Amino acid sequence: MSLTGAQYIGQNQSSKGRETFSAIDPKTGSNLPVLFHEATIEEIDRAIVLASNAFTDYSQKSNLQKATFLECIADEIMALDEELVDRAMSETALPKGRIVGERGRTVNQLRLFADVLKEGSWVDARIDTADQGRTPAAKPDIRQMLIPLGPVTIFGASNFPLAFSVAGGDTASALASGCTVVVKGHPAHPGTSELIAQAILHAVRKCNMPDGVFSMVQGISHRVGTELVQHPLIKAVGFTGSFKGGKALFDIANRRTEPIPVYAEMGSTNPVFILPGALRAQAENIANGLAHSVTLGVGQFCTNPGLVVLSPSDNSENFKEALVDSIQSSIAGTMLTKGIKTAYEEGLIRLEENGIAKLVSGKKGKDENSVNAQVFETSSDNFVQNTQLSEEVFGPSTIIINSTSLASTLEIARSLEGHLTATIHGTDDDLAQYVELIQILKTKVGRILLNGYPTGVEVCHAMVHGGPYPATTNARSTSVGTNAIKRFLRPICYQNFPDQLLPEELKNSNPNSIWRLINGSFSNKPVS
Amino acid sequence: MSLTGAQYIGQNQSSKGRETFSAIDPKTGSNLPVLFHEATIEEIDRAIVLASNAFTDYSQKSNLQKATFLECIADEIMALDEELVDRAMSETALPKGRIVGERGRTVNQLRLFADVLKEGSWVDARIDTADQGRTPAAKPDIRQMLIPLGPVTIFGASNFPLAFSVAGGDTASALASGCTVVVKGHPAHPGTSELIAQAILHAVRKCNMPDGVFSMVQGISHRVGTELVQHPLIKAVGFTGSFKGGKALFDIANRRTEPIPVYAEMGSTNPVFILPGALRAQAENIANGLAHSVTLGVGQFCTNPGLVVLSPSDNSENFKEALVDSIQSSIAGTMLTKGIKTAYEEGLIRLEENGIAKLVSGKKGKDENSVNAQVFETSSDNFVQNTQLSEEVFGPSTIIINSTSLASTLEIARSLEGHLTATIHGTDDDLAQYVELIQILKTKVGRILLNGYPTGVEVCHAMVHGGPYPATTNARSTSVGTNAIKRFLRPICYQNFPDQLLPEELKNSNPNSIWRLINGSFSNKPVS
Repeated sequence: MSLTGAQYIGQNQSSKGRETFSAIDPKTGSNLPVLFHEATIEEIDRAIVLASNAFTDYSQKSNLQKATFLECIADEIMALDEELVDRAMSETALPKGRIVGERGRTVNQLRLFADVLKEGSWVDARIDTADQGRTPAAKPDIRQMLIPLGPVTIFGASNFPLAFSVAGGDTASALASGCTVVVKGHPAHPGTSELIAQAILHAVRKCNMPDGVFSMVQGISHRVGTELVQHPLIKAVGFTGSFKGGKALFDIANRRTEPIPVYAEMGSTNPVFILPGALRAQAENIANGLAHSVTLGVGQFCTNPGLVVLSPSDNSENFKEALVDSIQSSIAGTMLTKGIKTAYEEGLIRLEENGIAKLVSGKKGKDENSVNAQVFETSSDNFVQNTQLSEEVFGPSTIIINSTSLASTLEIARSLEGHLTATIHGTDDDLAQYVELIQILKTKVGRILLNGYPTGVEVCHAMVHGGPYPATTNARSTSVGTNAIKRFLRPICYQNFPDQLLPEELKNSNPNSIWRLINGSFSNKPVS
Repeated sequence: MSLTGAQYIGQNQSSKGRETFSAIDPKTGSNLPVLFHEATIEEIDRAIVLASNAFTDYSQKSNLQKATFLECIADEIMALDEELVDRAMSETALPKGRIVGERGRTVNQLRLFADVLKEGSWVDARIDTADQGRTPAAKPDIRQMLIPLGPVTIFGASNFPLAFSVAGGDTASALASGCTVVVKGHPAHPGTSELIAQAILHAVRKCNMPDGVFSMVQGISHRVGTELVQHPLIKAVGFTGSFKGGKALFDIANRRTEPIPVYAEMGSTNPVFILPGALRAQAENIANGLAHSVTLGVGQFCTNPGLVVLSPSDNSENFKEALVDSIQSSIAGTMLTKGIKTAYEEGLIRLEENGIAKLVSGKKGKDENSVNAQVFETSSDNFVQNTQLSEEVFGPSTIIINSTSLASTLEIARSLEGHLTATIHGTDDDLAQYVELIQILKTKVGRILLNGYPTGVEVCHAMVHGGPYPATTNARSTSVGTNAIKRFLRPICYQNFPDQLLPEELKNSNPNSIWRLINGSFSNKPVS
């Protein structure tokens, strides 16, 4: 494959934009090969019109056809081999193990959605059969299932150049749903994006999918994203990134003549509560596990644990010491972009402002492109009174909040805004005493973990990677796991349709033996 | 029971607002007994704070407790007996048969949600079990289910004083979900609203539900609704009414510090397509059925068929004649309010403006408070070029659009915005020829009907009463049928929780034998 720096409007490449940008090696700050063109408004329009035309055909593809397509995309990504790994490493400064692991996650995600399609029950079919004899009025035959929304736009995320980018979970779930997709590649890894786009477009050709089922445009300016979201043919938006970016797209989408849903996952500080018994029994283990979770991937995860609520205990100082030691002994890392590095460093300074939090670690980065992990400390009163302490500082830092009592811990929990996750470290005795903590946290997050660490989001059927605002713009959804497909679907019902005109999923015979709610009871049998 | 005109802040009555309004008998234009107080901002705040406090308790009630509560509400509504029927008739001018029928629908709706709760699978439980031996990393135990959002506000609708009002589908589904509810009573039927509120509050006491699980405030000014939606403790909004009203609430909700979902069902014109074969075989039958659907309830239904796309046929004139005859012989009716009557009359005038549609019926109302049904006619070109023709004129009118060919019919379909329903009258031969019409309409509506009429929305598991914008602000939801509960829920997942700390629905033993997705397979068995 060779990089062109063009937009991919279906199978057509187009480089009309006069403005260009380069990928930058974060380790050196120098430009990488190939100039990437900013998409013009005309190119964006062409991609979306093509996606809209392709939708008519693609939305009617069978589950098996879409599954084969997703599996083929996975194979094509694997076929990119070292070229993909090398380019992704140069563009992100992430180590080979991480890129290879993330590639595995990306293709597994595509294959998991293929499995969901082949199983078939994802359409949530519901059938209420007719009753001609009902009085005072006959009961009609009503059958419901989920159908795709239309062409959607997906924003690649900087921090997962593969798993949350061009062929990441958003694209995989949208294509699985039957939506056509126009991706906005993230400008921090445009070469990686282009390679993946080429792989997807190979799969489009191999599987005879309609041209326009997938397009990708590139751009470093906000204009490109704005124009995508404003386009009247776009029916939904998937985004993972900053609060500022996600909220801006949400507002743009709501101001459209036809407002559309924006599924923006905007990160959070993922509080970790360490209860007295656990602190007594496991201080060092937890401190080390936490330090690992804070520093993993140079802290560039949405689920990075940025708040540690420490119960009062004789062992508190030991915990802090172990955490600081472990954090200080971690290796300095290069962040994904200069912008992320600057934001991290400014975030650290902001935490110390007005003396509301105290830096308790202190090692500096080993060179101008790398950063070190840091630990801060504050009182529970300071935390409850200063909302900025719970704002995400994207990177490898965490704040210890010294709780003074059970009541103080609950007060801290009540003061939280929406987060992706909350974690509790506790013994059985702790948990029996802190039942209310779990109840409070349930109203604040999408995922609650016991005795673990929030980083490492399992891709499975039961995962919720989401949570109340401001963690996301739509708490009723997840962007990881098979339920992510629901974001791009809506229900439709058919009244009094003869069997031959119904979609397969709603026919009496139930040809694929999917699970359906028939007159209120679940069944994978035909309608009798 | 006696009417007080007060707000119901849980079990407390409060009448602090100095502004008052009366219910008006639409048949006479005269005031009905009792002055109703406008809720003050302080009363609204008290109701919502109480709802928020009650949420902690109510959201943890068992399915059985909530089901018993809903059934008790139904019983208490029935116990209001003639007092309710009489007051609703005086406030709405709807005939006794309609009010009694609507009461039946309202209590059946409550009982249907009770059944859904007792069955239990509505929480969409998903379980992925752990695999300690997985490499490179152990697989955690992850379990997902739906939980309620928090306190919500529900707006009573004018056109269904029982089934879409204080104890209507929105309230029933919100209470079933575990949300607490603050209702804004519709000022067109405040006495009916108060009687229903009293019935619900009886049920709250009888079932030992927490005070604040239900409150109702009244108001004729937009201020009351605005303050409800702006309150930071409110987590979602249910609304049925005009486009203007629903869109205003949607915008207010999105401008909040924490945006919240607004499920506004804003009506539509529900196009009916009459294909050539059906027109040849059934012109008179369809015309009569359609006239009945247009005039039912003085046309005051969201699913009222306001557009009729007539295929070219030798029988077109017979159809039109039969429709006009049938419409003209319908009895003049009194509309729900003076405001609705005025809007209907202005809507009719607007249709004729610039000569884009022609009035083909012509009977006037029998007195100053009643209106007659009317039929208009326009060309397909006029329709496609004048978007205002597809805007809802709420009331008993419909526009015949003369299609000139199959292509013209498809063009009309493509030009449609989002609607709640679309209906096709066609023979088997017609439908074989018009396959594309069904494909186009699928992208436009929430419900497609064959050879029927859109009024009469069945309350069942498979119903979709919703559709793409501007029919609703959230096409991914329905406001009728058991799936309506989903609007007030969000998923949460538990990672590595011991069985004893998990909610019943996620425990290994599956005590209520609910259907769950276990490692990707549906099962109502325990986790083995």
